[in-house]
Amino acid sequence: MTLLSEKIYTHAFRLTAAQCNAQRELAPAMLIQQIIEVATEHADLLGVGFKRLQEDGNLWVLSRIAIDIHRYPRLLERYSLSTWIENYNRHFSERNFELRGEDGEVIGYARTIWVAINMHTRRPADLSGISYIAETVCDHPCPMARQGKIRPQDPPQIVHNYTFMVSDIDFNRHVNSARYVELILNQFDLPTYDDFYLSRFEIEYKHEAHFGDEVEVCSSFQDETLVTAIQLDETPVCVARSFMTPRGKEKESDTTQQ
Amino acid sequence: MTLLSEKIYTHAFRLTAAQCNAQRELAPAMLIQQIIEVATEHADLLGVGFKRLQEDGNLWVLSRIAIDIHRYPRLLERYSLSTWIENYNRHFSERNFELRGEDGEVIGYARTIWVAINMHTRRPADLSGISYIAETVCDHPCPMARQGKIRPQDPPQIVHNYTFMVSDIDFNRHVNSARYVELILNQFDLPTYDDFYLSRFEIEYKHEAHFGDEVEVCSSFQDETLVTAIQLDETPVCVARSFMTPRGKEKESDTTQQ
Repeated sequence: MTLLSEKIYTHAFRLTAAQCNAQRELAPAMLIQQIIEVATEHADLLGVGFKRLQEDGNLWVLSRIAIDIHRYPRLLERYSLSTWIENYNRHFSERNFELRGEDGEVIGYARTIWVAINMHTRRPADLSGISYIAETVCDHPCPMARQGKIRPQDPPQIVHNYTFMVSDIDFNRHVNSARYVELILNQFDLPTYDDFYLSRFEIEYKHEAHFGDEVEVCSSFQDETLVTAIQLDETPVCVARSFMTPRGKEKESDTTQQ
Repeated sequence: MTLLSEKIYTHAFRLTAAQCNAQRELAPAMLIQQIIEVATEHADLLGVGFKRLQEDGNLWVLSRIAIDIHRYPRLLERYSLSTWIENYNRHFSERNFELRGEDGEVIGYARTIWVAINMHTRRPADLSGISYIAETVCDHPCPMARQGKIRPQDPPQIVHNYTFMVSDIDFNRHVNSARYVELILNQFDLPTYDDFYLSRFEIEYKHEAHFGDEVEVCSSFQDETLVTAIQLDETPVCVARSFMTPRGKEKESDTTQQ
């Protein structure tokens, strides 16, 4: 039996000066790192975390994240991330997030998709051994659009090269999931972030990159979005779509209305 | 009057998976970011933080950090950073740190030097307006050597180029202090960190770098240390010295004995 109170897990944060970006807000890549941390904490609490999956030789791999943000937490603001499982089947789980500012107002949502793989074969794993995860599914609302198919343009309009260094590598010896987000969002310059904010971002992780890998960050503008693929030769490491909104227009957005 | 309990301030941490490096430890650059955060918290608590200095048109600037580490906190470990002011005069303050592991054992020390500058002229400021800081000085032991003079070799043995991107910029619109540390420590490769750990590191910040600045990371081996200068044309942005110790040799160090 899972109590309702455990179905929605909340982590409280406070944005310190050292964590701020140049606009004195929570940087999108830091938000995504915190989303991953909070997901891990909740899964551990429910007994479906990395430790439990390891017993079956499996591990969770983050497949997709989409964030839909009304405004980012500001310098010294107390904010919170709440998470719950919306859906689950034998191969993946859908976990959603709600971002609240200091006054308790919802200022953003996120959707994530986690797949389980066998840690040796790297092939999709069967999650039926933890079918009790079904009891934790929760119908809390998440009024943001699901992630769509991302189709990078070939050839791209803009290409930057990057070689992954020691500081980019995570505890699994792969490139840190949040670091890809930084590389992608670095395609915009500082004045752009002064005038616009990242109101929606979607990323799909496709292949792992490692220390020393030399990649191409390939971007093109499609309609009002920047579509980016990080390519390791012919292999797409991840694809993403970034949507920027002029600052001061936040109030017109209706994606986070309750 | 300042209570003894306020003279030493302690912040407790837990090392999450998302924060670990490839060796499943706290990365040195993340430790330095946390040192800066804890310093800021303590200064605010004592009424000598950025807010108080701002009233006089001044601000704190981190001038030097040296860390002397016996071992780094490990994945999921609860650890703490304690800080106190060792010394203070009209122009700068010396603030020390003690790093403790889960079992309460001291596993490292740090020394920092903060200077106050006028926020408009960028010239050294006079701190005599907050002379009450003297009451908070504390003689808690910090048995690590002070930072020495760092003399980069000219010409250097190794040069890497880097251009500062959006994700490198902090809330003051300068390059993040911890990001320089990453750039410097990225001069070693991943296998080196598997076999060695950074037992001592010293950095002196000399000039601020900004978004778009193209720098050269210039390094040379001098005796058993790597000496690095980050150069913006002829201007040194910072200079640093890194000392690596073979893993498994930690017990022979006596710098952190009590």
